This record gives sequence, structure tokens and C-alpha cells, in this order.
Amino acid sequence: MTVNILFAALPQRWDSYREPLSTALREAGIDFDLRTEFAPAEVDYIVYAPNSAVQDFTPYTRLKAVLNIWAGVEKITGNPTLKVPLTRMVDEGLTRGMVEYVTGHVLRHHLGMDKHIRGLAPGDWPQDFPPLAQDRRVTVLGLGELGAVCATTLAGLGFDVAGWSRSPKTVEGVSCHHGDAGLKAALTHAEILVLLLPDTPATQNLIDAEALERMPMGAMIVNPGRGPLIDDEALLAALDAGHIGHATLDVFRVEPLPAEHRYWTHPHVTVTPHIASETRAPSASRVLAENVRRFEAGEPLLHLVDRTAGY
Amino acid sequence: MTVNILFAALPQRWDSYREPLSTALREAGIDFDLRTEFAPAEVDYIVYAPNSAVQDFTPYTRLKAVLNIWAGVEKITGNPTLKVPLTRMVDEGLTRGMVEYVTGHVLRHHLGMDKHIRGLAPGDWPQDFPPLAQDRRVTVLGLGELGAVCATTLAGLGFDVAGWSRSPKTVEGVSCHHGDAGLKAALTHAEILVLLLPDTPATQNLIDAEALERMPMGAMIVNPGRGPLIDDEALLAALDAGHIGHATLDVFRVEPLPAEHRYWTHPHVTVTPHIASETRAPSASRVLAENVRRFEAGEPLLHLVDRTAGY
Repeated sequence: MTVNILFAALPQRWDSYREPLSTALREAGIDFDLRTEFAPAEVDYIVYAPNSAVQDFTPYTRLKAVLNIWAGVEKITGNPTLKVPLTRMVDEGLTRGMVEYVTGHVLRHHLGMDKHIRGLAPGDWPQDFPPLAQDRRVTVLGLGELGAVCATTLAGLGFDVAGWSRSPKTVEGVSCHHGDAGLKAALTHAEILVLLLPDTPATQNLIDAEALERMPMGAMIVNPGRGPLIDDEALLAALDAGHIGHATLDVFRVEPLPAEHRYWTHPHVTVTPHIASETRAPSASRVLAENVRRFEAGEPLLHLVDRTAGY
Repeated sequence: MTVNILFAALPQRWDSYREPLSTALREAGIDFDLRTEFAPAEVDYIVYAPNSAVQDFTPYTRLKAVLNIWAGVEKITGNPTLKVPLTRMVDEGLTRGMVEYVTGHVLRHHLGMDKHIRGLAPGDWPQDFPPLAQDRRVTVLGLGELGAVCATTLAGLGFDVAGWSRSPKTVEGVSCHHGDAGLKAALTHAEILVLLLPDTPATQNLIDAEALERMPMGAMIVNPGRGPLIDDEALLAALDAGHIGHATLDVFRVEPLPAEHRYWTHPHVTVTPHIASETRAPSASRVLAENVRRFEAGEPLLHLVDRTAGY
């Protein structure tokens, strides 16, 4: 029998999910009808974002489950009209996307790609070979799940990788430092610095004038972590002075980054619009389709929310 | 006793080798004097490039060995004045450099970095998330040593990698195709195509109009292999038509690429000046220092040339 699936999220999400979700459902062997409009009494599953128009689940009389496409469920767990199982999104795509962004931008800075992408003068033939990765010192600040996987991947490509975290950690192939003394050593090592720390009172402005001063001349920074990790004025001063060679920034104190911010026009800053890490429609669609398959087969749902605990 | 080492190569080579070679010799525990000028009778070893001024080895009466910094030795093996052992350069740096170039440029195209590097308009915030690597199909043509390592590395990062070679090969994690029929399948798969084939009569213009037509709309090409693999006019036509989205080219029929060539100014071509793969001074220096250490210790030399065979 055909399973009716209502997609209840903002229109731009439908644009990105329509095709991959259909593909994933087909590949999961489900006979489905996927739409953004249904008579409520005909809906079997709702693929859901908490900011959608659907807030009252009462009319959805044959609803089997609500499958959230956000990791966060705090805006729906308290909804008293929701009586069926709720799942949250746990997407390995988020980690993989971060690894790809970090690896790509570290290799970009390592290889000195920008001058080629902007274009050499016709006939110009400067054969400046970069060092090998084994002779390039990279530091990853933050060794949580994302930081540890990024550090391991960079080490696997041959980079000379140091890592730092507040408390002691061990990551294979990575020289791990910790605490205040360890931070100095980690910064001294950072020809390329990757920031993957959480935003806490202890990490705000961690990359200040003093920290920047410890980094090697011409060092490059990649920040896909959190905007407040960096003292923006100190970074701009270090870039202007040439002590820091380039900064690639994906996160900012205010987002979208205001049009008048100096980062936009600084010749040694690359702004990316908070794209390093995000639930990806194709991998998230596979999780959603797997959950429909499981429920139809009477198997337990993945990532079921414990609504009394709230997550 | 101090070992006298003459560096006999072009001045730009000295610029890149002076420091890493000194470091490598020091780390190998050798008491050395490294210079570009010596009285010939005082020289123990010559670190050598065949295009150097030294062509007559007769005055080098206490010479122990000649250590070539090129992989190719065809310009020195026939030299009748050379009576001492000759080594050629076998540099794992060459392979590693290729892997780094290929991985970096594949990730660059995969992530759509160019628009960020060129710079978004201030305030512009287009959160276009790339697919994950697992949803990106990459094809490597050529599964020799370089191609196989590149394909494996890309597969390790999660890419959906196909490989193709003339004769059947097996590479872990890579869907391997071969022969004429296999080539069609490999090209159809190539959202990003990496060319690592040798230059032979069978591979010249392999990437012609028909091959380009088989590739997915908007496909991207990375060619660090050989210039003649590509039919240049067919590629320019496919770029102009938008069927091929971008080409990153490191090798050309004529090098340096002539200033008037259309590749220089085409908005969807990135020219890199034959830098993807090259003996790297730091890793090559370690090989040279190890050979000095070995000879001084009475151990067999690495990469000794069989001068009757010529390699």
C-alpha cells in the first residue's frame, strides 16, 4: 500500500530535499507518495521542520511518526498535540561535510592555489613548488568529534598535525597538547591553524593579539568553528601587518556578516557563508527513508526522541 | 673527517636545496661542507643535475659518488669521464606531491571554492551546500602508481571513485574499468575527471569531443598527467558550450604555455605551471643525505644506476 509522506518545512528545504528524498525512499523499497500538501487524515508520516506551518497535529488522525530534519527538537517536544513517535536528525553528513571543508581549505592554503585560481598573467610560469604535507605544520584547536576527525584526516594526508584541547586527549597520528602551556606550543606549530572549538566563555577571543603573535610569520587561519573564538580587530591588525598571511572564515559574531564589515573586502580574507557544516539533504534523506522503512517493517526507529528527557 | 659535497646544478636549484640539504645532512649525522664551488681535487660527493656546468669528471680525483637530483639519468650515463657510482633520484615526494595536488583540486571543485576565493559581493550570503563526497562521482583515468594512490586517497575521503586503465587492474575502494567499453562507463561517471595517463600513441587526444560529450553536464577536469591527452580545441569548444564546467590544467603540449593561448584567459580554465608533481627539495634531500651516510658507513647505495642498462 502506498505510504503518504507530507513534507512540512520551508519551501527552500523542499527544493533541496525533493529529489534526494524521493531517491532514498525508492532505494529503501518504499511505495510512497511524497508531497507538500495532503488532506491531513491521509498522512502516514510527516518529514518535519519545527518552523513549518504545521503546528497542530490533531487533524493528522492516521499519522504514524514525525521525522524531524533538524538535529534540534526543543521547539517541538513540548507540543501537546503530538501523540506519535518523534525522531531527530543525526546526520553523519554534518561531520563528513566539515572534514571535506577543512581538508579542502587546508590543502588550498598548503598548495597556494589562490594565485592560480585568480589567474597568472598569460605566459607567466612561476614554478614555486609548495613543501610536501609532511613538511607543513598544521594545528587543530579543539579535539571534539569534529576536530578529532579533521586532525586524523589531515594526518592521514601526511600533514604534520598538532592538536589542542582544554583537557588531555589522545588522537592517533596527532601531537596532542592541552591546557594553557600546551596552547602556546600548538600556536607556535600553526603554519595553518584550524579552529574547531565550541563557543564558551573560556574560548571567546582565544585567538587574540597575543595568540596571533605566537603563530609563525605568514600563518593561515581556517575558522569553521565559531565566530567569537577570534578577536576580529586583532586578526585584522595581524593581517594588515602581514604577520598572518590569510584567514578563511566561515563563522562570524553576526551572521550574515554585515555588508560593511572589513572582512568582505580584505585582500587576505576569504569569507564563506557558514557552509562548512550542515545537514545535507542526500545523507539526511537516507536517514529519513531508513526510518520509514523501519517503522513499516515493525523495526525500532533510529534517533527516537525521549520526549520526557527532551532530546 | 669533514665530507666535502659539491652542489652542481642551476642556481635556482641551490636556492631550494641549500637549507633542506644542510638540514638532512645534519640529521644524518654527517660532518659536511656543502658548497657550489670547491677545488675539484677536494670533492668527495657531487650532488648533481645533468644540466650543470660540470661535464668532465676527470679533475675530481677523490670523488666517491655522483648523486643525481633528477629521476632521469639518460644525459649522464654515457659520460666516459664518470668512473664512480651514480645514483638517480627516487623521491616519494613526487608521488605525495601529486596526491596533494589532485586531492586539493578535486576538493576545490567539489566544494565550489572558486566563488569564495574570488570573493562574494559584501553581504551576499548564498548558502549553497555542496553534496557530500559520497554523492560526488570522480573518475581517475590511469591506474599506474600515481593514479592508483590518488584514486585510493579520494576514495578514503569518501568520494565515489571510478578508475580506468587500458588493462584490468584492481584498486581497493575504487570501481575499476578497463578497455574501450570501460572507458565509456568511466567517462559517464566523471563529474570530476582526473587524468593521470602516460603520453603514448594510444592516449593522445583520448579526451576528444566524443569523450567530453559522454561526461555529465558541467563536469570538471583536472589534468596533472600529460598535455597531449586532451584535444585542446575540443575542450575549449566544450567549455564554451558550458558542457564542461571547468578545466584545471597543469600540463600542456608546449610548455611554458604560450602567452597567446586561449587557456590563459578562458574564464573556466585554471592554468597551473606544471607544478603538480616534482621532486621536492626536502624529501629529495633526505634521500641524498641517506646515500652519503650509507657510502661513508660502507653500506650499499640506494637507487644505484646500472650504467650498462642505462637506468
